[in-house]
Amino acid sequence: MAPKPVSDRECPARWSRRRLLALAGAGLGVGALASSMAGAMARGRSDVDGMALPFDPTAGLRAFNHGTVIRENGVPIRVFEVQARSLTVPLRRATRFKAWTLDGSIPGPNLRARAGERIRVIFHNGDSTSHSLHFHGIHPAAMDGIQPVLFNKTTIYDFEAGAAGLYPYHCHVAPVTRHVGKGLFGLLIVDPLQPRPAADELVLVMGGYDLQNTGHNDLYAFNGIPHHFMEHPIAIRQNQLVRLYLLNMVELEAPLTFHIHANSFEILRQGASGEFRERSDVVTLGVAERQILEFRYPFPGRYMFHPHQDQIAEKGCMGLFEVLAV
Amino acid sequence: MAPKPVSDRECPARWSRRRLLALAGAGLGVGALASSMAGAMARGRSDVDGMALPFDPTAGLRAFNHGTVIRENGVPIRVFEVQARSLTVPLRRATRFKAWTLDGSIPGPNLRARAGERIRVIFHNGDSTSHSLHFHGIHPAAMDGIQPVLFNKTTIYDFEAGAAGLYPYHCHVAPVTRHVGKGLFGLLIVDPLQPRPAADELVLVMGGYDLQNTGHNDLYAFNGIPHHFMEHPIAIRQNQLVRLYLLNMVELEAPLTFHIHANSFEILRQGASGEFRERSDVVTLGVAERQILEFRYPFPGRYMFHPHQDQIAEKGCMGLFEVLAV
Amino acid sequence: MAPKPVSDRECPARWSRRRLLALAGAGLGVGALASSMAGAMARGRSDVDGMALPFDPTAGLRAFNHGTVIRENGVPIRVFEVQARSLTVPLRRATRFKAWTLDGSIPGPNLRARAGERIRVIFHNGDSTSHSLHFHGIHPAAMDGIQPVLFNKTTIYDFEAGAAGLYPYHCHVAPVTRHVGKGLFGLLIVDPLQPRPAADELVLVMGGYDLQNTGHNDLYAFNGIPHHFMEHPIAIRQNQLVRLYLLNMVELEAPLTFHIHANSFEILRQGASGEFRERSDVVTLGVAERQILEFRYPFPGRYMFHPHQDQIAEKGCMGLFEVLAV
Repeated sequence: MAPKPVSDRECPARWSRRRLLALAGAGLGVGALASSMAGAMARGRSDVDGMALPFDPTAGLRAFNHGTVIRENGVPIRVFEVQARSLTVPLRRATRFKAWTLDGSIPGPNLRARAGERIRVIFHNGDSTSHSLHFHGIHPAAMDGIQPVLFNKTTIYDFEAGAAGLYPYHCHVAPVTRHVGKGLFGLLIVDPLQPRPAADELVLVMGGYDLQNTGHNDLYAFNGIPHHFMEHPIAIRQNQLVRLYLLNMVELEAPLTFHIHANSFEILRQGASGEFRERSDVVTLGVAERQILEFRYPFPGRYMFHPHQDQIAEKGCMGLFEVLAV
Repeated sequence: MAPKPVSDRECPARWSRRRLLALAGAGLGVGALASSMAGAMARGRSDVDGMALPFDPTAGLRAFNHGTVIRENGVPIRVFEVQARSLTVPLRRATRFKAWTLDGSIPGPNLRARAGERIRVIFHNGDSTSHSLHFHGIHPAAMDGIQPVLFNKTTIYDFEAGAAGLYPYHCHVAPVTRHVGKGLFGLLIVDPLQPRPAADELVLVMGGYDLQNTGHNDLYAFNGIPHHFMEHPIAIRQNQLVRLYLLNMVELEAPLTFHIHANSFEILRQGASGEFRERSDVVTLGVAERQILEFRYPFPGRYMFHPHQDQIAEKGCMGLFEVLAV
Repeated sequence: MAPKPVSDRECPARWSRRRLLALAGAGLGVGALASSMAGAMARGRSDVDGMALPFDPTAGLRAFNHGTVIRENGVPIRVFEVQARSLTVPLRRATRFKAWTLDGSIPGPNLRARAGERIRVIFHNGDSTSHSLHFHGIHPAAMDGIQPVLFNKTTIYDFEAGAAGLYPYHCHVAPVTRHVGKGLFGLLIVDPLQPRPAADELVLVMGGYDLQNTGHNDLYAFNGIPHHFMEHPIAIRQNQLVRLYLLNMVELEAPLTFHIHANSFEILRQGASGEFRERSDVVTLGVAERQILEFRYPFPGRYMFHPHQDQIAEKGCMGLFEVLAV
């Protein structure tokens, strides 16, 4: 049952190249963009209070894991490997949090597939506590990821990617609030067969940290590190279409809102017969709810984004877009 | 003004028969389904810690009260009778809760009518505390159910069923949080004139219990009994269309989410000019919000459903679907 | 850069007149309506426990500030002036709250413009604490209103009104929860170029008061004064189309619901290609979320409206419509 990797002529290489070409074709100057982003990074810090971050939330924004396509009996299968392990993460001055991570980051990898593909997730539990991966989406009971996977064991989740959309995944070992709150969550993006228009695609996942295990969150973050994107603004291009894959994984909390400053977005509500593109600048998401948002910033400058529950924003769930003039 | 029952050639008998025929026509084997469900029941328990339940949440799932149609001056009126009374309900080991119920169950009866029908609800208050029934929907002020009905008194609510949809009802005597929290709520389903496609129709209502009257809920339940559907999984057929009438009546709490495992559902958002069938596997519902959800399970097995606020799920608001192979 | 007021032949006079004519044309008897409303006022009180209110929530319901249109280099600009200042507001018996207000009321003025217009807001800070005005909507970073404006200083926010819709504005000085909670918020209504059908238009804004600065709200209100519309029901006409501009600005709280009794409303969800008119009688709104609701009351009488989180309703966020027979 071990996956036999074969050459994947279609992805992820071709996808990435096509995306880059599309950006270039739109006159965006990908090189310039990358260099601007590096500049934005350089202006920030890569540590919290002198302790280096074990993962880079900025890199995670646009890092997509397309896995590897193998063939079994002629059937293509997209194979991902994900490992759970503990990590000490500096969340703020003098706060070292023993997190549980997937592939060493919070959130876990941004997995990416296409509608209808057969998916195989090889899950290794490298942590001394039992964990699992429960995927949202359509699959048999045996693939539901509610059985704990013991230390040093490997489990395979095999299922078909359903309709295009966003599918959270997370550990489902009880208490789920604790396993999610320690960092074991991420997003599977299932792309439509007919690709969406080229865009600068970003993943933002909201999470909460209950530092003392009191049942209440003390800190919040986009992509794992509180306030990271205040220090490292997310560089985007003026007038560029941005497609934001947004997920709320803040357990122990009421539904959150998400607001971007100085702009409106379209919420691509997925319907059985097409999308309804609702327009707003605030959207409410309960735990595990997610939406695809699209927007363009017409003016250069720095713009905040955060839940409009400002007490939560002020505890780490806040960031900046840095819109670079074309 | 006393209702004169007349023979009702149309319902509920014909509706039930039509529904059964439709199920049978779809090759579902209604008898087999009923027997499977009985089997599922038998595997569970019918009591909590040795105290028998005063009502059966599993039976309540698919029990629809169509009332009786009478005619006054040639006008058909659908008449329901509902009685408030106190009941001691075993919620968990060593917890006996003095509940206020409608017709002896939590939630109250699943009332069912058709769009535009004239409705009459004869409400008897058999409890020593004053109560009322406030229906959501369109009706005159005098029928709004905000006047307390004293012990041993009867009130009649007379109004027209509006557009097809789901209409919660609940006691509106202050403090409403208390009267709802003690169990006085339920759902009126108004069917469209053109019936929806045949389906296995279920009612799930989320409620919360503030045991010590502290302003915070200690326990939660689908259909009245915490964890009931973990012990008694809801039997449904593989590939069968399930139509879930879902209502959130958890007072004292932020909006809840509802999630089903290993599947997606369509949310039938009711619009002025047709439905928008949004697709997801998590939906957020504020207090008194409700949605019609439709889904089919393609694979046999057991699948959890619960709010994705897992701390609430773990306090009783959790259940299982048992999908039976065709 | 000082605005040069010029005569505005189009508004606000013509708008108001058109609206009045439309109401009259619909046979509504505007004079009678005004007189009925005055009657409703007279039945209530204009003070809280003997202390006069510094503003009248009932007047604020239908007061629209269209500003003044000036021309600069031939370009029309709609100019608003808004002033922040402190005010002592009696919230309930023996509770005098030192509020921060915009133009002396909570919420601030209901600003009103048309899609695509150029807007200029002249903001004077007459309060000894620094404040700002952050508008939702599309504008350059320099117009985003996140810079504090010192005591006795004036700032100008210049931007274009975007697509038709509702745009909250509020102080964005940290802690935002405190500045919003003290009263610094309001609504900018951007009308479509093709006017919506004539209606009785109302603005309701939900707010919360954290009296002791504990991080929890003690009181809630529609339009600033707890329970005001219980004492002063909102007079509307039977069968008249009501268009409600609804905004939730309750910080420190989970998303709220809004429910009207004995009726349904249409929620005008704004889409990129048209509205989706969802029908319900309960809608959930996170902080800074807002919706346009439309409804008609077919029967005379008094009808409650409130969040369906009843513990919040009972702390001041509750009101009545008084539907007057035609």
